[in-house]
Amino acid sequence: MAQKFAKRSEDYSKWYNELVYRADLAEHSDVRGCMVIKPYGYAIWEKMRDILDAKFKETGHSNAYFPLFIPKSYLSKEASHVDGFAKECAVVTHYRLKNAEDGSGVVVDPEAKLEEELIVRPTSETIIWNSYKNWIQSYRDLPILINQWANVVRWEMRTRLFLRTAEFLWQEGHTAHATRQEAIAEAEQMLEVYADFAENYMAMPVVKGLKSPSERFAGADETYCIEAMMQDGKALQAGTSHFLGQNFAKAFDVKFTDKEGKQDFVWATSWGVSTRLMGALIMTHSDDEGLVLPPALAPIQVAIVPIYKSQEDLDAISLKVAELNGKLRVKGISVKFDDDDQKRPGWKFAEYEAKGVPVRVAIGPRDLAEGKAEVARRDTKEKSSVSWDGIEDYIENLLEEIQTSLFERAAKFREENIRKVDSYDEFKKVIEQEGGFILAHWDGTEETEEKVKADTQATIRCIPLEMPKEEGKCMVTGKPSAGRVIFAKAY
Amino acid sequence: MAQKFAKRSEDYSKWYNELVYRADLAEHSDVRGCMVIKPYGYAIWEKMRDILDAKFKETGHSNAYFPLFIPKSYLSKEASHVDGFAKECAVVTHYRLKNAEDGSGVVVDPEAKLEEELIVRPTSETIIWNSYKNWIQSYRDLPILINQWANVVRWEMRTRLFLRTAEFLWQEGHTAHATRQEAIAEAEQMLEVYADFAENYMAMPVVKGLKSPSERFAGADETYCIEAMMQDGKALQAGTSHFLGQNFAKAFDVKFTDKEGKQDFVWATSWGVSTRLMGALIMTHSDDEGLVLPPALAPIQVAIVPIYKSQEDLDAISLKVAELNGKLRVKGISVKFDDDDQKRPGWKFAEYEAKGVPVRVAIGPRDLAEGKAEVARRDTKEKSSVSWDGIEDYIENLLEEIQTSLFERAAKFREENIRKVDSYDEFKKVIEQEGGFILAHWDGTEETEEKVKADTQATIRCIPLEMPKEEGKCMVTGKPSAGRVIFAKAY
Ligand SMILES: [Zn+2]
Ligand SMILES: [Zn+2]
Repeated sequence: MAQKFAKRSEDYSKWYNELVYRADLAEHSDVRGCMVIKPYGYAIWEKMRDILDAKFKETGHSNAYFPLFIPKSYLSKEASHVDGFAKECAVVTHYRLKNAEDGSGVVVDPEAKLEEELIVRPTSETIIWNSYKNWIQSYRDLPILINQWANVVRWEMRTRLFLRTAEFLWQEGHTAHATRQEAIAEAEQMLEVYADFAENYMAMPVVKGLKSPSERFAGADETYCIEAMMQDGKALQAGTSHFLGQNFAKAFDVKFTDKEGKQDFVWATSWGVSTRLMGALIMTHSDDEGLVLPPALAPIQVAIVPIYKSQEDLDAISLKVAELNGKLRVKGISVKFDDDDQKRPGWKFAEYEAKGVPVRVAIGPRDLAEGKAEVARRDTKEKSSVSWDGIEDYIENLLEEIQTSLFERAAKFREENIRKVDSYDEFKKVIEQEGGFILAHWDGTEETEEKVKADTQATIRCIPLEMPKEEGKCMVTGKPSAGRVIFAKAY
Repeated sequence: MAQKFAKRSEDYSKWYNELVYRADLAEHSDVRGCMVIKPYGYAIWEKMRDILDAKFKETGHSNAYFPLFIPKSYLSKEASHVDGFAKECAVVTHYRLKNAEDGSGVVVDPEAKLEEELIVRPTSETIIWNSYKNWIQSYRDLPILINQWANVVRWEMRTRLFLRTAEFLWQEGHTAHATRQEAIAEAEQMLEVYADFAENYMAMPVVKGLKSPSERFAGADETYCIEAMMQDGKALQAGTSHFLGQNFAKAFDVKFTDKEGKQDFVWATSWGVSTRLMGALIMTHSDDEGLVLPPALAPIQVAIVPIYKSQEDLDAISLKVAELNGKLRVKGISVKFDDDDQKRPGWKFAEYEAKGVPVRVAIGPRDLAEGKAEVARRDTKEKSSVSWDGIEDYIENLLEEIQTSLFERAAKFREENIRKVDSYDEFKKVIEQEGGFILAHWDGTEETEEKVKADTQATIRCIPLEMPKEEGKCMVTGKPSAGRVIFAKAY
């Protein structure tokens, strides 16, 4: 670890990129915009996926799988959807290669041209509603509550690991309902699921809100979102849940017969989170030494490093550790005992620090003699000498404390960086000098949104759901405002 | 269930296709060759995935994720790989659509043509070894033991649900080793993992073997496989594990420094199973009434159907069932209590039969009064009146018995349909009239393989690993043979 890394305070963006490599989470591939998610990064994503998946199932959803490819014409069926998604995407035009005549390799076979081009899914509303059309006849077929874990592709010119990549992994829920109210309740329920996951597992406080019309999902009547504040004060949209009205049902002609025998179009929602959450997790907690992980998402919660000179010492330590290991496993705590003799303890300490392992236990012959071990927590870097007797309970409590304390630290940071602002001059000054979230009045028009964005790069992150309603005047135009909205620069 | 379905004995292929729909496992999508895996089918696949994933992790593997797209030139780097995989595949040539000038929808933007076409992965050796190149310098970086769960695409003109689809889901393990022996041991270990999974979870007996050179994976030095016999006597290759030698290391220039400081190319394996296993599962156990599932893979192991006329009856039954439910859950048995009052018991019985639920419990007011319930097993359709007292143990044992009995039934069927044949005339007669696996002597040449295939459509399924060695003479040419191989017609 002799290498010098960027500090957060010096260059946040460089710090982020270096951290993703240091912690061995992901790397760029040679394929433009596509990343390789490395085993340690993938193990964190797997934890996220499993926790979310259990929550989706608890709320009545089943998983299914729909095709990767979408016929080009499907994208045009929903008018606003096509504007949002049919642009920067990967287009499959041929289905065969052949040997080049000059022996230089393979070339596309011009005779194997598809009649209709296929788009690699950027999101699956269209292909899924084309199936739902055949699944739904009567109210008895509703609701349909399906989720899909999949890869999607949105061609991006400027990419950043996890935050913006051409291919990414995500889940997309797609539900069909008999009534408008039921669909809205579903969209709101899934927003709550996301907020619960963000706060109680990622230890990342979020604001629940509604997107302004111009920031809605293409094809949605309403987009709910959760917005988190990163350490540099910028906002990151961590999940969205869309009430799609009857838009896709109309586009794909999906009607059902209700209990009274009347026909109506079906109501829809969709909702998703992606590997972008990995970026949010990193930028909420980590520090100059590397990743900091909340225990609930750490693939390794406790790393145990033996300090020894002789094989005898190591044997004695290993015996003691095996006992602890068993006790921790019973509690469902994941442990790694690192007795690799090619690496020095100092190197291991730095390595587990870089990888964000929440608790590190070091134990040497003297500790052993005294019936103690050194326990270090990653978040505050505090070390304690802990009696071996009952150390498993100490560690269990410490993991809970770290989980809570990470959330509180992030919540405090966010509180310190949410500011109410009433004049546009002040807004411009604050967004430039302080960043963070700004609560300001807005007249509800797209023109004002665009002006603010052009002047300051800040956008409306959301119209918060849980805030005392306070009428006022738009900071830009002076026109009436129904309540403050959150402006911020965003990832 | 008034509809008349094809019987296995009349039209096996039609029976299969209808069964996939009846059991609600999957359906064709409007995208050529791509299927929709429906929630019930996906729930079975999830069980398979979770069991296999745990086995991969137990044997030291981690999951990771590599890009969906492969630059066209990568496929040409390994000479035999390109012949096997660079032909029928989905080719991405453009990265943008634009609005058609005549307002008719969207068209491919000719200005957004990729400099190098991207292939949607048919398998990931090339893209992964292009990454491993940067990960491996010394023997300390080895072994690399990585698995990926992903979708892959191989353009197919004639598709069948699960058995042969353009897009399918699979896992692909890709490992890198310092020595030839270690790589071979890995390939053999994963073959054992697959065989264990096939036999002990799918209840599907398999023959472990080696592919003949002409049937090897493109780029492999040796392909191990497991072959299962379907109910129509045809073979299905259920999993493959490849010893790749140094072929991909040479193609991508991946060398490492060994302990003595000497440089050498890295040794490789890859291994995979896919959603094709769903087809194998169906065709091993199911019958004319629908799917038959081994309990180890059944999303619902026990369906409980109340028989009632009054709400009072239902309430009394529900109370009793809730108690049983709790007892079964403690045992890790998944239960569905189907009190849907829109559907009649007979309809439900047929439905759970079609879906292969291993055990069905029916309980009516008289059963309740007598302290009994009717327990039916799906595989043999036997029904028993079982005392309510201890019924949870009865069901637990029954599930185990069904699991064992399905395997035994399939093993017996296979035994009855493996035949030793010594003359080519007899071979042609047996393969035409009886089908099944034929153990015959072969001279080891591709010419003979091709002749047999041309004459009879049968191919060498494998050179079995666990068979007494018996020298002999090739049934076709009379030349010497080192041992019998398995011929069969195959899926
Ligand atoms: Zn928001
Ligand atoms: Zn074989």
